[in-house]
Amino acid sequence: MNEQRGPVTALRGSRDAQLAVRIALAATVEPEDRTMLPRLRGLDPFTAWDLVRSNEGGAFGRAVARAEQLRVDGIVARTEEVGARIVIPGDAEWPCGLNDLEHPPFCLWIAGQATLGESCERSISMVGARAATPYGTQVAGELAYGLSSRGFTVVSGGAHGIDTASHRGALAAGGRTFAAMACGIDIAYPAANAGLLRQIEQAGAVVTELPPGFAPQKQRFLSRNRLIAALTPGTLVVEAGLRSGSRSTATAASRIGRLLAAVPGPVTSPASAGPHQLIRDCGATLVTDVDDCAELFGAIGADLAEPKRAAPTLFDALEESDRRLLDAMPVVRGTTAEKLAISAGLSAREVTRGLAALHAARLVERIESGWRRTPGHAS
Amino acid sequence: MNEQRGPVTALRGSRDAQLAVRIALAATVEPEDRTMLPRLRGLDPFTAWDLVRSNEGGAFGRAVARAEQLRVDGIVARTEEVGARIVIPGDAEWPCGLNDLEHPPFCLWIAGQATLGESCERSISMVGARAATPYGTQVAGELAYGLSSRGFTVVSGGAHGIDTASHRGALAAGGRTFAAMACGIDIAYPAANAGLLRQIEQAGAVVTELPPGFAPQKQRFLSRNRLIAALTPGTLVVEAGLRSGSRSTATAASRIGRLLAAVPGPVTSPASAGPHQLIRDCGATLVTDVDDCAELFGAIGADLAEPKRAAPTLFDALEESDRRLLDAMPVVRGTTAEKLAISAGLSAREVTRGLAALHAARLVERIESGWRRTPGHAS
Repeated sequence: MNEQRGPVTALRGSRDAQLAVRIALAATVEPEDRTMLPRLRGLDPFTAWDLVRSNEGGAFGRAVARAEQLRVDGIVARTEEVGARIVIPGDAEWPCGLNDLEHPPFCLWIAGQATLGESCERSISMVGARAATPYGTQVAGELAYGLSSRGFTVVSGGAHGIDTASHRGALAAGGRTFAAMACGIDIAYPAANAGLLRQIEQAGAVVTELPPGFAPQKQRFLSRNRLIAALTPGTLVVEAGLRSGSRSTATAASRIGRLLAAVPGPVTSPASAGPHQLIRDCGATLVTDVDDCAELFGAIGADLAEPKRAAPTLFDALEESDRRLLDAMPVVRGTTAEKLAISAGLSAREVTRGLAALHAARLVERIESGWRRTPGHAS
Repeated sequence: MNEQRGPVTALRGSRDAQLAVRIALAATVEPEDRTMLPRLRGLDPFTAWDLVRSNEGGAFGRAVARAEQLRVDGIVARTEEVGARIVIPGDAEWPCGLNDLEHPPFCLWIAGQATLGESCERSISMVGARAATPYGTQVAGELAYGLSSRGFTVVSGGAHGIDTASHRGALAAGGRTFAAMACGIDIAYPAANAGLLRQIEQAGAVVTELPPGFAPQKQRFLSRNRLIAALTPGTLVVEAGLRSGSRSTATAASRIGRLLAAVPGPVTSPASAGPHQLIRDCGATLVTDVDDCAELFGAIGADLAEPKRAAPTLFDALEESDRRLLDAMPVVRGTTAEKLAISAGLSAREVTRGLAALHAARLVERIESGWRRTPGHAS
């Protein structure tokens, strides 16, 4: 990156200069790198880049080979070639939530119509297993559709399974959705989702912290997961095996104080073992429908869910003594008030008053042999 | 009960005398009666019965009709006729847990081989909807079987659905199981479960606080539920609609400090709405298998469940830098150490050391064009 040294020093403080060193850092230091990043914490990007370049005491040996072949202008050109943009902290589009991360991205590559930062204010991250079950994809799709209809941006990872179902649900509702990727913005991964990713760009955006050409790799998926967690007020895990990467998203969300929720499922389904463990051991809130999610992830007080209650029955509205009287009432043959007092354990006055009330409510009727329940009200 | 007045007074303090007044109280005062029971709290049964009989100020009008036709000897005879026994506080078989109730039963009718009190020390109440799904009955049956195999007594309500599946699971394991009923000990309810109730008597017992001849009535099911909750250290709700009576068992369990757990299920199943609400809003612990239940309901420290974890893979055991190196390793064509340093973002030394380690672990191999993953270890 020798050709960048001059301009970078001259323009310190300008957006272009900062963009250049941030691209350089993104292209040489792997996200969440445990060796180099701790030494760069709290430094401005210029100082950080100087330190990486100098490889003082060999602490930045990992960056040497990459720095030698780095061409920032090539990265910028490739970004423009695929119609993407690069966003850095301070830009209006930068999502402030990312600043909560221990190691925020140096910059973001974004391809799509929507503005990332403001779209994430009312949003939810939906994640889960690639090997989802029909139950999981159905639930994810319905929740995403419902939340999208209520103005939530749905953020996910563009992968098969729960991710795809979540994006598709949001798209079906005509809402905004973002896919945070574990590879360069010029790579459609998985390839089978290339069409879906194009739709996501139309209705939202695809976003990544990895420079063009960076391949999807296992560690990068884990690092990417922290972005999904940080972009929104909370993460919902729909289905996940005990080994699922969704667990890392959940952990990341909890670590930076985001809400965490999970959808239960059959205990016989390994794909629900992850959500169950998150609910039981990690404080995830159990959610079952769009109302639950909107209440949890929406603005405080603005999306209150109706308490889940069965409709009250006529029986519920009766007084205790009348309920007992009705309980004791025969269904076929009639009985006397005296016998009802014994079988219901009520006083003569309670029986007389109760019979009048139940009769007025047409719950009981008088036949030749005495009182019985009105047929049709037998239960 | 005039014929009882003399002996009762003469024998105050004897077990027979106490048994007689307790039978009289059970036969005249309905379980959880809101009018009479609050006036009897804290009184010994003799004083309580005197008060009920006297109907002072009309406060016990509900008992008048019943008291007039009461025949304690008839109740005792009927109990013996059906091969049952009556147990009162102070008897060895009395389950002490019942004393935690606001209104404990006056006495218990028990039919069966097992001794109630001691069998309830290691026990669990399993309850749920009569209208259970195949999922619910399968899970209930398997949990009851597994818990029974580990020495837990399974307490339930003898009803269709989850109750039946729970009893049957315990029976299949050759374990003890109790059915707490909402009717007299001489009534098999539901009639279709008469055979099951006979099996339960052989392997455990059927128990009720209602005198012989008392029919199953709505309010009595609710009162019976508090017995199920009080008999064991905790209650497990397997499936329940929002209106299910299991909710009253759960509430009763919580009120007297018992453990409460629930089995999640598909959010698309109304039969799992009850458990989900209990987990979300009522502090019920989410349980998914026998290990979870044994740990929760068993003796502290004696039944610890293994933490649910996926088996670690070879990949987990690698150091961070080696994982990144393996991530960057091509699958088909080989690559050079220099290129790996760039794609993995590692130093030359880390690559050299990592290649040696991965090669020794047979995760990578050297071919003419360089290094690649060993076929078969591609993922």
